[in-house]
Amino acid sequence: MNPEPPVSLWPDPEALGPVTDLYELTMMAGYFASGMAGRRATFELFVRKMPEGRAYLVFAGLEQAIGDLLRLAFSPEQIQAIRRWPEFGQLDPSVMEALAAVRFEGDVWSVPEGTVVFPGETLVRVTAALPQAQWVETLLLASLAYPTLVASKAARVVAAAGGRSLFEFGARRAHGPQAGMLAARAAYIAGFDGTSHAEAARRLGIPAVGTMAHSWVQSFGTETGAFEAYARVFAENTTLLVDTYDTLEGVRRAAAIEPPVRAVRIDSGDLGTLARQTRAILDQSGRSRVQIVASGDLDEYRIAELAAQGVPLDGFGVGTELVTSRDAPALAMVYKLVELEGEGKFKLSPGKKNYPMAKQVFRRRDPEGRFCGDQVARADEMAEGEPLLVPVLRSGRLVTGLPSLECIRRRCREQLAALPDRLRRLNAPPDYPITYSELLESDARRLMAR
Amino acid sequence: MNPEPPVSLWPDPEALGPVTDLYELTMMAGYFASGMAGRRATFELFVRKMPEGRAYLVFAGLEQAIGDLLRLAFSPEQIQAIRRWPEFGQLDPSVMEALAAVRFEGDVWSVPEGTVVFPGETLVRVTAALPQAQWVETLLLASLAYPTLVASKAARVVAAAGGRSLFEFGARRAHGPQAGMLAARAAYIAGFDGTSHAEAARRLGIPAVGTMAHSWVQSFGTETGAFEAYARVFAENTTLLVDTYDTLEGVRRAAAIEPPVRAVRIDSGDLGTLARQTRAILDQSGRSRVQIVASGDLDEYRIAELAAQGVPLDGFGVGTELVTSRDAPALAMVYKLVELEGEGKFKLSPGKKNYPMAKQVFRRRDPEGRFCGDQVARADEMAEGEPLLVPVLRSGRLVTGLPSLECIRRRCREQLAALPDRLRRLNAPPDYPITYSELLESDARRLMAR
Repeated sequence: MNPEPPVSLWPDPEALGPVTDLYELTMMAGYFASGMAGRRATFELFVRKMPEGRAYLVFAGLEQAIGDLLRLAFSPEQIQAIRRWPEFGQLDPSVMEALAAVRFEGDVWSVPEGTVVFPGETLVRVTAALPQAQWVETLLLASLAYPTLVASKAARVVAAAGGRSLFEFGARRAHGPQAGMLAARAAYIAGFDGTSHAEAARRLGIPAVGTMAHSWVQSFGTETGAFEAYARVFAENTTLLVDTYDTLEGVRRAAAIEPPVRAVRIDSGDLGTLARQTRAILDQSGRSRVQIVASGDLDEYRIAELAAQGVPLDGFGVGTELVTSRDAPALAMVYKLVELEGEGKFKLSPGKKNYPMAKQVFRRRDPEGRFCGDQVARADEMAEGEPLLVPVLRSGRLVTGLPSLECIRRRCREQLAALPDRLRRLNAPPDYPITYSELLESDARRLMAR
Repeated sequence: MNPEPPVSLWPDPEALGPVTDLYELTMMAGYFASGMAGRRATFELFVRKMPEGRAYLVFAGLEQAIGDLLRLAFSPEQIQAIRRWPEFGQLDPSVMEALAAVRFEGDVWSVPEGTVVFPGETLVRVTAALPQAQWVETLLLASLAYPTLVASKAARVVAAAGGRSLFEFGARRAHGPQAGMLAARAAYIAGFDGTSHAEAARRLGIPAVGTMAHSWVQSFGTETGAFEAYARVFAENTTLLVDTYDTLEGVRRAAAIEPPVRAVRIDSGDLGTLARQTRAILDQSGRSRVQIVASGDLDEYRIAELAAQGVPLDGFGVGTELVTSRDAPALAMVYKLVELEGEGKFKLSPGKKNYPMAKQVFRRRDPEGRFCGDQVARADEMAEGEPLLVPVLRSGRLVTGLPSLECIRRRCREQLAALPDRLRRLNAPPDYPITYSELLESDARRLMAR
């Protein structure tokens, strides 16, 4: 047995330098060693392809990514360890010194969080010295793709729920403890009303919601005893889980609690039928103000079905399906070199068309304010519509503060309200029109011809 | 705009107390307030159902979970914030004091990491004062389910690759920056040879592997110039990415580099055909020792196909499909109360059978050493076979050190080698035999009868 203490895989937020792919570090070293570290590069982050079953995406995760860029650095221990790897051992000491001293001092433009976006659109544009711009690739992708996946799924759940309350319950099913926190925030941006994640709620100032587990009920001699004990402690903040033994029997016991509890939660069985029976029991017991919340493997389809049937459920707890984005757990988000020292760059892989040069995205609205099409243009062009990318960092520092979470959430609500109705349907085909400016097309043709 | 700095969602590893669902905290408070905090409870963690397309699981993630339990606590700021939430504001001050002072001081038994396991088997057993045992539910599930998913998928990839080298390349596609680190470790346990994740490699002492991105090649005037510059810096540690422009042309240019590089990587196109053509070009150029590595949306099925065709690929980089466990991104892992003050507990939900009482799992082997069936028994029973659960924490402290990562990896190799051949097939049905002891069955019947 190993006498060492358990290895922690919680990175130090002050030393995220190597929280990236090794090749970012070897390329950085290579640029330093090849005298190319001063070249100014622009990379753009975008989604290559819409995930299965989505017609739009909600961009999220920027605040944490920017926070990480502001602190991005290597600790002395990290530099020592890297120096011992075969790739780095033979490098000129000046290269390791450059690596040890590097910070992110670039410019970042980004679409604001909460914006509805589509594949093929520049979402983040990074202009920096080549090693710095390369360094942040993996961290940006890892920080932005997952929250965007969850916010995009959450927006569908919100559309399906037709105004009923929604709570993010996925902490235990997310891909590790940090993912649960990222998911809570992304779901809130897209319109969820709260999260069960206590620390995410505390950090972000969003409502923390919770009920009880079956183990609470089982820890008492009787279900009524368990309910009474909980209500004695939490008074009007009590939500009782009623399906530990017989659900309807549980509802009757919950209805008898004095003073009345806030809500009951049903976590199993035929939710539609049980909810109707539960409502009837509660109403007959003079408990018409006691709410009913459902949970248990819910997704946007199941919720839409329950909502369409007019089932008397006041809220839903959504976990696994949301926080793993189970039907589309990966997003084809990429980060590509588009410009180096003012010269356009792009890659000519089959089926992977992209455009050279720093870009801006312009969104047009119809007379009712609905989005009717986006044009991707060069950053130095004017085009019709609202430019989506705004400056976030200049020379590695915040241009202004970042929007508050409430502000991001409001933006998201406005954005979702401005979506064409057809795109908000759960089975909508991803047909939002994206075009590229004539200047970009001719830049691409010119580069291709070479 | 918000003048506050970006909110970090990196939890403080020293204050993971609220990195959990709110209801764990309300139940803890409820047990303190109801005078039940001294009751001794046993909870067990197990997988309810095999994920689609899997026939066995590889248990992983324990070391980080245990490290977190050893430090588990609330910071004073967290206690202050929790006190302001409606559920907690009206509690007796002694309850908040108890919460502020609580630590995990329980006993933990667990299956060792790297063990092959199956649904319905107790994987971790926690015995502690009721509030403490309840507290760790969400953290344990969030810490163990994801690494187990990734290790289980990785074991399939290892089986498919037939001895070829495998590298974990998924940092950018994992669900947030921490998930990438957890995935790197889980893949290594299951037999991967290295990871591209620099910080995971450094923390864990596993080989860090890396090549170059297309942006490196694009940053130079010519592909040959890019290759030469890289080889000048990294000498024999050079792997060249050859598909930025024309793959076979890239291979020819790579073959001309002096001294010979270590490997070339192909990231797009028809990998089978390209690998054969690449091998031929390299061999004709006197580069028969230059290896060929492939990457690009690979999973166990694609790798098995390439391996079956005898394609001359020396290694594979596997990212998205592995680190999102894309075909099965969620694991139905649960944590259930089984015993309270010596009395058996279980929940009677339809389709969710589980057994009361603290348990042990016994694994039998056939004369060739292959696993031939597991029996779940009461912890105080003897049964035939090897007991899988071993003591890890006693009264909140490590019983011995935890096994080293290399030791876990060796155990996993031994475990996978002892799987019945039929289960190692990619399309194997999940038919490994699990039985429950007569004592458990009669305990369950007795409880059910009440």
